[in-house]
Amino acid sequence: MPGDYEIYDLGDVRFQSGATIRGCKLAYKTFGKLNAAKDNVVVYPTWYSGQHQDNEWLVGKGMALDPDKYFIIIPNMFGNGLSSSPSNTPEPYNGPRFPNVTAYDNVRAQHRLVTEKFGIKKIKLVIGWSMGALQTFHWGALYPDMIEYILPFCGSAKCSRHNYVFLEGVKAALQADAAWDNGWYKEKPAKGLRAVGRVYAGWGLSQAFYRHELDLKVLGYSSLEDFLVAFWEGFFLPKDANNLLTMLWTWQHGDISNNEIYKGDYKKALAAIKPKAYVMPGRTDLYFPPEDSENEVANMPDAKLIPIESIWGHFAGGPGTNPEDVKFLDGKIKELLAG
Amino acid sequence: MPGDYEIYDLGDVRFQSGATIRGCKLAYKTFGKLNAAKDNVVVYPTWYSGQHQDNEWLVGKGMALDPDKYFIIIPNMFGNGLSSSPSNTPEPYNGPRFPNVTAYDNVRAQHRLVTEKFGIKKIKLVIGWSMGALQTFHWGALYPDMIEYILPFCGSAKCSRHNYVFLEGVKAALQADAAWDNGWYKEKPAKGLRAVGRVYAGWGLSQAFYRHELDLKVLGYSSLEDFLVAFWEGFFLPKDANNLLTMLWTWQHGDISNNEIYKGDYKKALAAIKPKAYVMPGRTDLYFPPEDSENEVANMPDAKLIPIESIWGHFAGGPGTNPEDVKFLDGKIKELLAG
Repeated sequence: MPGDYEIYDLGDVRFQSGATIRGCKLAYKTFGKLNAAKDNVVVYPTWYSGQHQDNEWLVGKGMALDPDKYFIIIPNMFGNGLSSSPSNTPEPYNGPRFPNVTAYDNVRAQHRLVTEKFGIKKIKLVIGWSMGALQTFHWGALYPDMIEYILPFCGSAKCSRHNYVFLEGVKAALQADAAWDNGWYKEKPAKGLRAVGRVYAGWGLSQAFYRHELDLKVLGYSSLEDFLVAFWEGFFLPKDANNLLTMLWTWQHGDISNNEIYKGDYKKALAAIKPKAYVMPGRTDLYFPPEDSENEVANMPDAKLIPIESIWGHFAGGPGTNPEDVKFLDGKIKELLAG
Repeated sequence: MPGDYEIYDLGDVRFQSGATIRGCKLAYKTFGKLNAAKDNVVVYPTWYSGQHQDNEWLVGKGMALDPDKYFIIIPNMFGNGLSSSPSNTPEPYNGPRFPNVTAYDNVRAQHRLVTEKFGIKKIKLVIGWSMGALQTFHWGALYPDMIEYILPFCGSAKCSRHNYVFLEGVKAALQADAAWDNGWYKEKPAKGLRAVGRVYAGWGLSQAFYRHELDLKVLGYSSLEDFLVAFWEGFFLPKDANNLLTMLWTWQHGDISNNEIYKGDYKKALAAIKPKAYVMPGRTDLYFPPEDSENEVANMPDAKLIPIESIWGHFAGGPGTNPEDVKFLDGKIKELLAG
C-alpha cells in the first residue's frame, strides 16, 4: 500500500563505494509494539525488487511473526524505490549515477534505524528471503552479540559464481534493449524489462514446477504463455530499470566478509555468526542450491541446515506463494523462537 | 573445416508447417566406408547451432565410433547454416521468412539421404547430443524397424515445459536488441547475440561447475568475465540470428509424436521405439534433467537409463569438453554396439 510506511532520515551516508548520498532515506514499516524491555524485536529485510508490503505474507496473528507478540521492523533495501534509489534520489546522484551499494551498506543503515530511532539493544530474530537472507547473514556477521536468532531462507551469505552468472544473463537481457540507453531512458525500456521477465521465468521456479504444470493447476494461469506474460513480464514491467540494476549489483557483490571487519576472510565471517541459526534453502532452488547452504552451515558455530522440501524452486521460500511451504517455514520459525 | 562436407539435393521439400523449400539442401559429412552388406551405418545428427565438425570429437580410431569399422553419417540440422537455413536460402524464403521446421522434417530428410543416396536399409546406431538426441529419438520413433540401437544423450524426445521457458529467455534476450529488427538486420545484432551468450552461460553448465571453478582450473579461462566474453559471447557472435531462432523454434517444438503417425500420442510414440536404447542424461544438466529421461525410459520397450555422473551440466555430453565424460560415454557406446 503506498504511503503505509515511515522514512528514517539517515543524513549523509557514505557507501563502501566511496560515494556519499546526502539526505539518505531508509523506508520501513513496523508491525506490533516495542515492549518496555525492548526485547521483542524482529528485523525482516526485503528481497530483490520487493518492498515491505511484499514481506507481509509471513506476518500475522497466530503466525510465528505475530504482531501481538513481536515488534517487527521491515526495512526496505536501497534501490527498491522506497529507500534511497536511482528512481527517487535527486540530482546529481539520480538514475544511472546512483552509486553501487552493498548489503553491508544496507545493514549498517538498518542498524542505525534499529538503534538510533528505536533505542533497541537486542534483536530476537533477523529473518529474510533471498536477498533478504543475504542481509540476514550480514546482520549475523556484523552484529552477532546483538542478535539471538537468525533465519535466512533461500539465500546465501555470499553470491555464488553460478548465481552471479545467472544475474549476468538477466542484466544482459535488459541492457540489450537500446531503449535502456545506459540508464538515461526517458521512457521505460519495456522490451528489456519483458526480456528480464522471460529470462527469470526459467530460474525462479524448478523444472518439476513446470513439469507438474503448477503455473496452470495451482496458480491458475490459462496457458504457459499467459504465465510468462501476465506473471513474469507483468512483474518486471512496472519496475524501474536503474533500480533493478542497482539491486542486481548489490546481489552480485553480496559477501559478508567484504568489509573492514573481515577483510575478505569468508570463513572467519561465517564463524563469527554466533546467533543460533536455521539456514533454510529450497530443495529445488536453481540459484541458491542447498549445497551452498551446506557449506555455510558447516562453517557457522550454531547453525542447522533445514531444506524446504518443495518443487517450487526459489519460490519455496516466498513470497508466500505456496501455502504448504509457508506452513513448514512458519513452523520452523516458531521452533527457533521457542529456543 | 569449410567445404569438408557434401550436399544432398532434396529437391522440393514440404515442411510440416506447409511451406515448401525449393531446392532444399541437406549438408552432411561421412567417415569410414559403407561395407558391402551396408550394415555398418551410424547416423549422428548435429545439435543446437552446431555443425558436423562440432560432432567429430566422438569419432576416431579406437573409439566406439571408429571409421575403420563404421560408416558414420553426420547430417547437419536445417537452420545450422550448412543445410537449408535462413542464412543460405535464396529469396523469397530467406532470412526471417525461412519457415518453421520440425525435428520430424529434419529426420525425414535425413532418412531420404540414407536410403536414396546410399541405398541403406539397416542402421546400426543413431546417436546424438542435445538436439541431436531429439533427432535420435525421432529416428527411433519414425523408423523403428530400420535401426538396431539408439543412444540419445543429454536430450529429450519432447521439449519439456521448463526447457521451453529457458529458451524463451534466450530468445527474448536476442529480440530485445533493436538491431535484430524482426530478422531484417543488415548487420548482426551483436548486443543481442552477446546477451544470448550471457543468458546461456548459467544454463549450459551446472552450479557445481562454477562452484569448483572449472572454467578457470580446467578450461583455463583467466577470470569468470573472461569465460563469459571469450567463450560464451564468442560462441554466439559468429552465428546468424535468424538461424539461431529457426533452430530454437525446432527445439521448442520438438516432440516425437507431433506428426501424422502418432497424432500427439506421446506415450504411443515412445512405446514404438523398438531399437535397444541407452538414454544418457547428464546428472546436473539444468535443462534436460534426468527425471525427464526417466519418464521416457519408463515408456520405452527396450531402454536403459544411464546418467552421466558429472558436474559439467549439459556439457557432460558434449561437445567433448570433459575427457572423463567422453571416456564414460564412449565406453557405453561400445557396450551398446557389442549388443
